Amino acid sequence: MLHAVTQGASGQQVHTLDGPVTLENGDELQGVTVAFETWGTLDAAKGNAILICHALTGDSHAASGQDGDAPGWWETMVGPGRAIDTDRYFVICSNVLGGCMGTTGPSSVNPETGRPFGTDFPVVTIGDMVRVQAALVDHLGIDRLHAVIGGSVGGMQVLSWCRQFPERVGSGVALATTMRHSALSIAFNEVARQSIVSDPNWNKGHYYGGESPALGLSVARMIGHITYLSDDAMHRKFGRRLQDRDEFAFDFDAEFQVESYLHYQGAKFVDRFDANSLLYITKAADYFDIEQGLRDSGALGRMAELRHPFLVVSYTSDWLYPTYQNREIVSLFKRYGVDVSFCEIEASCGHDAFLLPSDRLTTILTGFLGKGDHA
Amino acid sequence: MLHAVTQGASGQQVHTLDGPVTLENGDELQGVTVAFETWGTLDAAKGNAILICHALTGDSHAASGQDGDAPGWWETMVGPGRAIDTDRYFVICSNVLGGCMGTTGPSSVNPETGRPFGTDFPVVTIGDMVRVQAALVDHLGIDRLHAVIGGSVGGMQVLSWCRQFPERVGSGVALATTMRHSALSIAFNEVARQSIVSDPNWNKGHYYGGESPALGLSVARMIGHITYLSDDAMHRKFGRRLQDRDEFAFDFDAEFQVESYLHYQGAKFVDRFDANSLLYITKAADYFDIEQGLRDSGALGRMAELRHPFLVVSYTSDWLYPTYQNREIVSLFKRYGVDVSFCEIEASCGHDAFLLPSDRLTTILTGFLGKGDHA
Repeated sequence: MLHAVTQGASGQQVHTLDGPVTLENGDELQGVTVAFETWGTLDAAKGNAILICHALTGDSHAASGQDGDAPGWWETMVGPGRAIDTDRYFVICSNVLGGCMGTTGPSSVNPETGRPFGTDFPVVTIGDMVRVQAALVDHLGIDRLHAVIGGSVGGMQVLSWCRQFPERVGSGVALATTMRHSALSIAFNEVARQSIVSDPNWNKGHYYGGESPALGLSVARMIGHITYLSDDAMHRKFGRRLQDRDEFAFDFDAEFQVESYLHYQGAKFVDRFDANSLLYITKAADYFDIEQGLRDSGALGRMAELRHPFLVVSYTSDWLYPTYQNREIVSLFKRYGVDVSFCEIEASCGHDAFLLPSDRLTTILTGFLGKGDHA
Repeated sequence: MLHAVTQGASGQQVHTLDGPVTLENGDELQGVTVAFETWGTLDAAKGNAILICHALTGDSHAASGQDGDAPGWWETMVGPGRAIDTDRYFVICSNVLGGCMGTTGPSSVNPETGRPFGTDFPVVTIGDMVRVQAALVDHLGIDRLHAVIGGSVGGMQVLSWCRQFPERVGSGVALATTMRHSALSIAFNEVARQSIVSDPNWNKGHYYGGESPALGLSVARMIGHITYLSDDAMHRKFGRRLQDRDEFAFDFDAEFQVESYLHYQGAKFVDRFDANSLLYITKAADYFDIEQGLRDSGALGRMAELRHPFLVVSYTSDWLYPTYQNREIVSLFKRYGVDVSFCEIEASCGHDAFLLPSDRLTTILTGFLGKGDHA
C-alpha cells in the first residue's frame, strides 16, 4: 500500500542498485530500489537526458506518458513540444531515497529484520538522494546529463548534483529553493514532525501493520499547505467566505472555506503519503546547506571550473524560499565564476507557483535548455 | 489548577457579575466571574481610568504592583512614570471571557452540571469579551474610560469597544492588530486547533480530571510562536546553529536551536494554559470582523459621531497582522471621520514586537495619552 504508484502512472519502473549506498551519516544501505519513469528517447550519443528532481512529497510521475495516464505533477512543463520537450529530450524522474512512492524508504522492508524499517531507517540527506539518482543515471548508461532541473526540495537536489557530480551536469535549473534551510523553514518542518510524533499511533515509527498516525500527519500537511500559499493567495482564494453556510455556526467544525481546504488537503495526503517519509525528507531539507557541503567536500575551489550554465528562478510571493534566498544561490555561484542567470517571476500564489502553469517559466526554460544545446 | 493566577501576582481580584451575560450566539451565561488587576488610583471624577486588553494567551497581570510581584506581560509600558503612567492613571486589566486565568471559561464549573464546561461552554466572540469588560468597568463605577489600549487580539477588543460602547471610550490605541481576521490567520488558528483536537486526551473537550491534551497543545503553541517571530528575527536569533553539539546527530531529536526554542515554548505553555481556552479564544479571533460588526449593529453611520482620538500602531516585520492590515483600520476610521493617527514602528522581531521594550512606542503612547487629557 505504501509503495504506491501514482494512480494511472503506468510507466513506473523499479531498478535495484547493485552495490550498497554509503550514506553521509556513515551507514550503508543494501539493496536500494529506485522507482523512476522516463519520457522520450535517449539519443545515440546519450547526450539528451534531463533529470527532473521532485519536491518534498512528489513522486516519479512528473508527466503522463501514455494514453490513460493520470496527469503528472509537472504536466504543463513536461511533454511533447513543452518546455521540457520529450520530443527532443530523454526525461527521467525518480522518487527520492527515504520516500514512499517506490524508492527505498522507512516503509520498505528492512532485509535484516524482514519488517519495515520504520525509524530504524537511517537519516538520509539531500546528498544521499542525489547519490542514488546518480546510480540510476549510471544504470541508464548516461555519463552526463544535459540538465538537472527541480523546484523546492528538488532544487536542493539540483544544487547537490553540482557539488557532488559537477562533471556529469550539463546545466542546472533550480526553482523556488534555497542554498540552506532557514531557521523559519526548519521551524515549520519541526512543528510538522512534532505533530506526527505526538500522534500515539506513530508508536516511535513502528506503526506498519497497525493504525497509522493519520491525525498527526494530516495536521503536518495542513502546516505545509499554509507555507505553500501566500497571504494574498489565501485572501483571493478564500477570504473570509464560509463553506456551505451564511452565518457563523458557533461551534468548532470547519466553517470558513480556508478551514475546509486545509481539512481536505490533510485528509487527501494521509491516503497517499507515509508519515515516516515526511519525517525523513523534511529532516534532509533541514540539514541542507550547500555552502557548508561545498566547504566540507573541498569543492568550493572547484566551482570556478564548472562551466555549465545555471539558472535560478524565484517567485515574488514565495515566503518559504523567498527571492532573497534564491539570490543567495546566484551570489554564491557568481563568486566562484559560474555562468548563472537569475529570474524572478511575478506570481501571487506563493511557493506553489513553481508547480503551476506559467507562460513566463515556459519561455525561460525553453530558451535556457536550447542555449545548453549549443554550449 | 487551571484557574491559575500568574505566579507572584498578588493583586488579582475576582468580581462576579450580577446578572447574566447575553452572548452573540444567543446563549446566556450566568454567574460570570472576571479576574482583574488594577494599578494607580481612580480620581474623584472617575475620569482617569485606562483599560488594557490582553492578547491571545495573556492574563490580567499586565504589570507588577507590589514588591515581590512577578513582572507583568507589559511591564515596560505600565507603571509609575512609564508610558501608561500609574501615577496619573487608574489602570485596569482583566482576563478575557473564555480564558483560563481567573475569568469564566471552558475550564470553569458549569453550574448546571457541577463539572467543568469543557466544550459545553458557548462559543464566545471578541464582542462578548468586551461586554464582560464593560460590566467590570460598571462595577468599578466608571462611566467613561480615558483610554482603551491593546495589541493583537487585545487590539480587536479595543476596536470592539469603539463599536459597542463608543460613548464610554475617551480614546483608543490598537497595536499590531487587524480589523478582520485574514484567511492566513484563520488557517494558522485552525491548524493549532486541529493539533489540539487530534490529541486523544482532548476527549472532545472533556478532559478535566484526566490527562490533558498536552502534546497537541504544545504543537499548537509552536505554530503560534512561528507566527510571533519573523524570518529575519529567527535568522538572527537562531540561524542554523545547533544546540549543545557541533555536528548533526542524524536522528529526530531537536538539534537546531530553533527546534529547542519551539520545544521549550511548547512545554512551558502546557503548564500555564488550558487547551480548550486556546480553542475558544482563537475562534473568537477568527470570527472578528469589525466592519461586519459595525454594519450588523447599525453603528457604521454613528462612526462619524465618535470624536475621540484613535491611534493605530503597526510593526514592519509583523506578518501575522501586517502593516497593510493595520492601515485598513485607519482607512475605515478615516472614511467615517474618526480622528485617527497611524504609526508604523521599524522592528525586526515580528508580531511579538508590541510586547517588547520600545522607546518609540513609549514616546508615541505618552504623547497620545497626554493629548487625550486635553481633548
